[in-house]
Amino acid sequence: MSEVKFRRLGPSGLRVPLFSLGGWLTLGGTVVGDPVKDIIKVAFDNGINMFDTAEAYAKGRSEQEMGRVIKELGLRRTDLVITTKLFWGLRNGPNDGGLSRKHIIEGTKECLERLGLDYVDVIFAHRPDVSVPMEEIVRAFNWVIEKGWAHYWATSEWSAYEIEEAQHVATKFGLHPPIAEQCQHNMFHRERPEKEYHPLYKKYDLGITVFSALASGLLTGKYNDGIPEGTRFATHSKFFKGTVDSLQKEDGLTKIRKVNELSTLAEQELGCSVTHLALAWVAKNPNTSTVILGASKPEQVLDNLKALEVIPKLTPEVMDKIEAILDNKSAPPPTFGRPHLDPMGRL
Amino acid sequence: MSEVKFRRLGPSGLRVPLFSLGGWLTLGGTVVGDPVKDIIKVAFDNGINMFDTAEAYAKGRSEQEMGRVIKELGLRRTDLVITTKLFWGLRNGPNDGGLSRKHIIEGTKECLERLGLDYVDVIFAHRPDVSVPMEEIVRAFNWVIEKGWAHYWATSEWSAYEIEEAQHVATKFGLHPPIAEQCQHNMFHRERPEKEYHPLYKKYDLGITVFSALASGLLTGKYNDGIPEGTRFATHSKFFKGTVDSLQKEDGLTKIRKVNELSTLAEQELGCSVTHLALAWVAKNPNTSTVILGASKPEQVLDNLKALEVIPKLTPEVMDKIEAILDNKSAPPPTFGRPHLDPMGRL
Amino acid sequence: MSEVKFRRLGPSGLRVPLFSLGGWLTLGGTVVGDPVKDIIKVAFDNGINMFDTAEAYAKGRSEQEMGRVIKELGLRRTDLVITTKLFWGLRNGPNDGGLSRKHIIEGTKECLERLGLDYVDVIFAHRPDVSVPMEEIVRAFNWVIEKGWAHYWATSEWSAYEIEEAQHVATKFGLHPPIAEQCQHNMFHRERPEKEYHPLYKKYDLGITVFSALASGLLTGKYNDGIPEGTRFATHSKFFKGTVDSLQKEDGLTKIRKVNELSTLAEQELGCSVTHLALAWVAKNPNTSTVILGASKPEQVLDNLKALEVIPKLTPEVMDKIEAILDNKSAPPPTFGRPHLDPMGRL
Amino acid sequence: MSEVKFRRLGPSGLRVPLFSLGGWLTLGGTVVGDPVKDIIKVAFDNGINMFDTAEAYAKGRSEQEMGRVIKELGLRRTDLVITTKLFWGLRNGPNDGGLSRKHIIEGTKECLERLGLDYVDVIFAHRPDVSVPMEEIVRAFNWVIEKGWAHYWATSEWSAYEIEEAQHVATKFGLHPPIAEQCQHNMFHRERPEKEYHPLYKKYDLGITVFSALASGLLTGKYNDGIPEGTRFATHSKFFKGTVDSLQKEDGLTKIRKVNELSTLAEQELGCSVTHLALAWVAKNPNTSTVILGASKPEQVLDNLKALEVIPKLTPEVMDKIEAILDNKSAPPPTFGRPHLDPMGRL
Repeated sequence: MSEVKFRRLGPSGLRVPLFSLGGWLTLGGTVVGDPVKDIIKVAFDNGINMFDTAEAYAKGRSEQEMGRVIKELGLRRTDLVITTKLFWGLRNGPNDGGLSRKHIIEGTKECLERLGLDYVDVIFAHRPDVSVPMEEIVRAFNWVIEKGWAHYWATSEWSAYEIEEAQHVATKFGLHPPIAEQCQHNMFHRERPEKEYHPLYKKYDLGITVFSALASGLLTGKYNDGIPEGTRFATHSKFFKGTVDSLQKEDGLTKIRKVNELSTLAEQELGCSVTHLALAWVAKNPNTSTVILGASKPEQVLDNLKALEVIPKLTPEVMDKIEAILDNKSAPPPTFGRPHLDPMGRL
Repeated sequence: MSEVKFRRLGPSGLRVPLFSLGGWLTLGGTVVGDPVKDIIKVAFDNGINMFDTAEAYAKGRSEQEMGRVIKELGLRRTDLVITTKLFWGLRNGPNDGGLSRKHIIEGTKECLERLGLDYVDVIFAHRPDVSVPMEEIVRAFNWVIEKGWAHYWATSEWSAYEIEEAQHVATKFGLHPPIAEQCQHNMFHRERPEKEYHPLYKKYDLGITVFSALASGLLTGKYNDGIPEGTRFATHSKFFKGTVDSLQKEDGLTKIRKVNELSTLAEQELGCSVTHLALAWVAKNPNTSTVILGASKPEQVLDNLKALEVIPKLTPEVMDKIEAILDNKSAPPPTFGRPHLDPMGRL
Repeated sequence: MSEVKFRRLGPSGLRVPLFSLGGWLTLGGTVVGDPVKDIIKVAFDNGINMFDTAEAYAKGRSEQEMGRVIKELGLRRTDLVITTKLFWGLRNGPNDGGLSRKHIIEGTKECLERLGLDYVDVIFAHRPDVSVPMEEIVRAFNWVIEKGWAHYWATSEWSAYEIEEAQHVATKFGLHPPIAEQCQHNMFHRERPEKEYHPLYKKYDLGITVFSALASGLLTGKYNDGIPEGTRFATHSKFFKGTVDSLQKEDGLTKIRKVNELSTLAEQELGCSVTHLALAWVAKNPNTSTVILGASKPEQVLDNLKALEVIPKLTPEVMDKIEAILDNKSAPPPTFGRPHLDPMGRL
Repeated sequence: MSEVKFRRLGPSGLRVPLFSLGGWLTLGGTVVGDPVKDIIKVAFDNGINMFDTAEAYAKGRSEQEMGRVIKELGLRRTDLVITTKLFWGLRNGPNDGGLSRKHIIEGTKECLERLGLDYVDVIFAHRPDVSVPMEEIVRAFNWVIEKGWAHYWATSEWSAYEIEEAQHVATKFGLHPPIAEQCQHNMFHRERPEKEYHPLYKKYDLGITVFSALASGLLTGKYNDGIPEGTRFATHSKFFKGTVDSLQKEDGLTKIRKVNELSTLAEQELGCSVTHLALAWVAKNPNTSTVILGASKPEQVLDNLKALEVIPKLTPEVMDKIEAILDNKSAPPPTFGRPHLDPMGRL
């Protein structure tokens, strides 16, 4: 199998594997006990040394399971990149959750307790919080870093405006700015990572840690003929209701048609599955620092890693064919009649 | 007639009349010579002391006409608020237009020559320029201000992201930030001024100078039964092609229906025309610093000013009725399940 | 003929033509009077609107001739990009020349007088000056910009260390940093522009304005069989003594052999001369903002511009063949055993 | 015997002995157990209270041995200056080694554990890391200092450009800049410490802690007739292969000839060995903060310290004779025809 390569996480010196493992929905949720250990072990043994979790994943059990397994496997802390996230909180109190200084500090402390660690490598703001001044948010994450509880901080699902606002505050007070954004990026979700964030890649060397590279499984082709039992859409039918409903409508049917065409391309021209093609397509993007995989079985991890072999096959010609099938590329930013010279990639 | 009130232009101490006069399309364009003087005179005599133009309006003739008339009327410079804008340029050279330091400095100089003035009160960036580093843009406008060629600078049609970026640069180097944004705001165009700019009003006290308060005339009701001769949509049919075409489609027909309903409300409950209602509705918004009127005849100016009498009639009950007719209010920003506490009005 | 394209000058919004015209040795030197006008006219008519000179070129006569011709041709100032340089001075006084505040201010004033202009677009420090504190140098160029005598400042023949030092001072005091470096870059002179400056391209978006793209003519092939009369090496034999002498030695003979091989490649595979190949090779480099041409006849300008047609022919395969002939590519910076991840292109 | 004098370590107030003891190759490597204690004891008893090590020396055993001996000898912590270095790491993981925040923090912690100390006096970056933004590097060393794990930080084998870049970041954010550079300096290796770093000595008061003052033994004269057994070149033949090979070639033979001439000078005019002359010559340089000695036997330490007596004998006349033999002094920086006034010693 191809070896997992490492990239820098955004502007930082932290090296993260091109594919990492996330605990969302699975670890500590639908998967508990020994199977969690099996999945993490097979990932680590195959070059995936980055594990992503969040306070909200399985109400804290994801962090607990991950921490337990790391200890049981006897993994060295320095060999791992551990990331977690704050925002949703675990209780319903008025100060449980959000990005107040109170929750950022109290919440990080609780994350570390659940993980059984002294620090994480990156702490993410799991959402923006419009009810907290940005100055308070940046100051609090800076405090967490200076305390030694995290080496870096980052954002998730923030708008470019909000990231710029955080950078502004960091500039003003000489604080640590966020280094990455955890966002959705896949063949059907492109606007934000490809267009909205565009100016941030050059200006701040922003890195993205991608989730939903398979569009919640849609890009595996498994929903082409309905919702099979045991799949994410069946198991978490309430959470994915909107997505599932859309599959019956024009937009959803168009997507399924495209998945079929991509499958043909993958199988006939690249000798791989559409799953591997979809993962490789996201991984190939130079702004991607890591693609976060989800897995409920060790075999899934191994299978997903086959995407590594597909990346070098994505020649300009193949990329053009994919664009022709997708037909959903974002328009460049307006230049109001002036020639396009490095649009948006401002210093 | 009610007197024209003054508001501060955003965070600045500059007082601008709630209604001002703009030269777009008309002054120097469809209107030249003595009629320009008549229009400006009636405006000034009725309390409108702010005149807005741009290098691109009628290819420089708008500035020339305005400058000529001010001189001929013998108006005191200190009694006037003169604003112009840079971006589009007048020629096709590679450095003609845009927001490079070269064009901001050379262009402002040429604006002042056409106007026959030593300075304008506010110089606007008529569009954003994604090909110029924001640092260069802010430094150049700052230079223009320090040079004494303008008292303030502002933006037009910039995104909230771009305004935040300009503020960031101004913070970093201690430069003059922009004080206002010239944008479209009317009953059918609400997303940007009401939602996108929302966080900027509290954080920076951003002011807006509104154009197209009547949706290019649509909100006067005059297009309810087609495009009459001599109207903007007829005279500038090429420029407004998209808008005119849409009037035939569902979206346009819905708008015309709403204009009819608003007319009924205006006439029966407020004793005014829909034009006055639409102008008053924009003027009432506390974030509006000034509503820029366009006029091809002196009478139009006088008629529009009747909107002043309508503003106090816009009680909460009337505003609710208007919202019910419009049915296009922007959703508040997401709080991801947390209670709405001052959403977005950060810092 | 292919049209001259424009690029931004480094991080700035100033658009410069990919090929520009320089006055070194020729304009005001070996060429005076009407021929200067002929050369500048043909350049301008063919899309070259940037003219580069220096106080030292022909002891000030280059600036005088250029200024005279611009006036006589009636060119609009805004259509032009005029650059000049300071350092060498014109007299021998202790404060004539160098980069003291005194010479930067007095010297710029004299340049403008010779040019008959109110300002230049870019003022270059023609060399570093180790006897002046960098703080004084940056403050003085900043003063010149704030005075309105130049829109930007830049360096020439500075080391990466010195450019970083200037950036450091600019950061410390919030001053204008230099935006470009005027340096030699050609197939036989690669270390500095390709390796030493490498980290500056990403960090500061540094632009380079290249001189000697033809290695003082060596890359035209005209010295393959000796020094023909009327050529630069014959006319300026004293200035080029070192270069001329080296042609007899091993290093020079190797270069001539390479020029022969490049000529064969150019003629047989690309259907162009080695001159055009050498110019296109420099122009293709994305860090090049402009390639400064020298010309003693109008025909030379026209001939050189044929290089524009060669640029698209420089495919990866052709570039590989050129590297194989040159065999002088700089080694990447050491990573001391760590995998190469974006070496040197630091934030 | 002359007493060991103390100098300030660069711009800091830390006083370091003119000769210090380093663990490279020997302590924990070719020397283990009681002999380590003997060497350190004789050094300390003779005025050498500074001990230099690194995470990479003997894969961590150098730090362990040094820590053990300090404890066993019962030396007071305040009487010692302990320095160690980070970069090479001890394992092969992607985040093991280099200068990411992760490795600087995790690595320093592990150094302290191996040394059995709460802090070191100076932590060095053992090499530059072009894959990590300088901002991250300086912030992380600053953190280590603020945490109390080190009193100062410094660099080793960094270019002047990189040191300037670190100073730039420190200025920008008000962080601790590096205070010293650990570099090679000896009669055959002069360019970097004497020329490249020249501007840094005056501007930042940079100190250097010199290694290889004897050019890996070449300047002791012991390799004049081949490679004797038990010497560094024999024991570490693989590491020094390049150096050893060069001794057979013209460059190496020239060096051996010069060592012979220096030996004659030392013995006949100064009454000392060439070893003492070479050490004294480095120590005399006012930019040298300390010369790091290596020793595999206690006697070596004592012998080396005889160099102290030679320093006052290095009169201007003797220094001139040495220069005449060496004939390898770096040229001063170019002043481009201007008189040499404090070249390079800027700011």
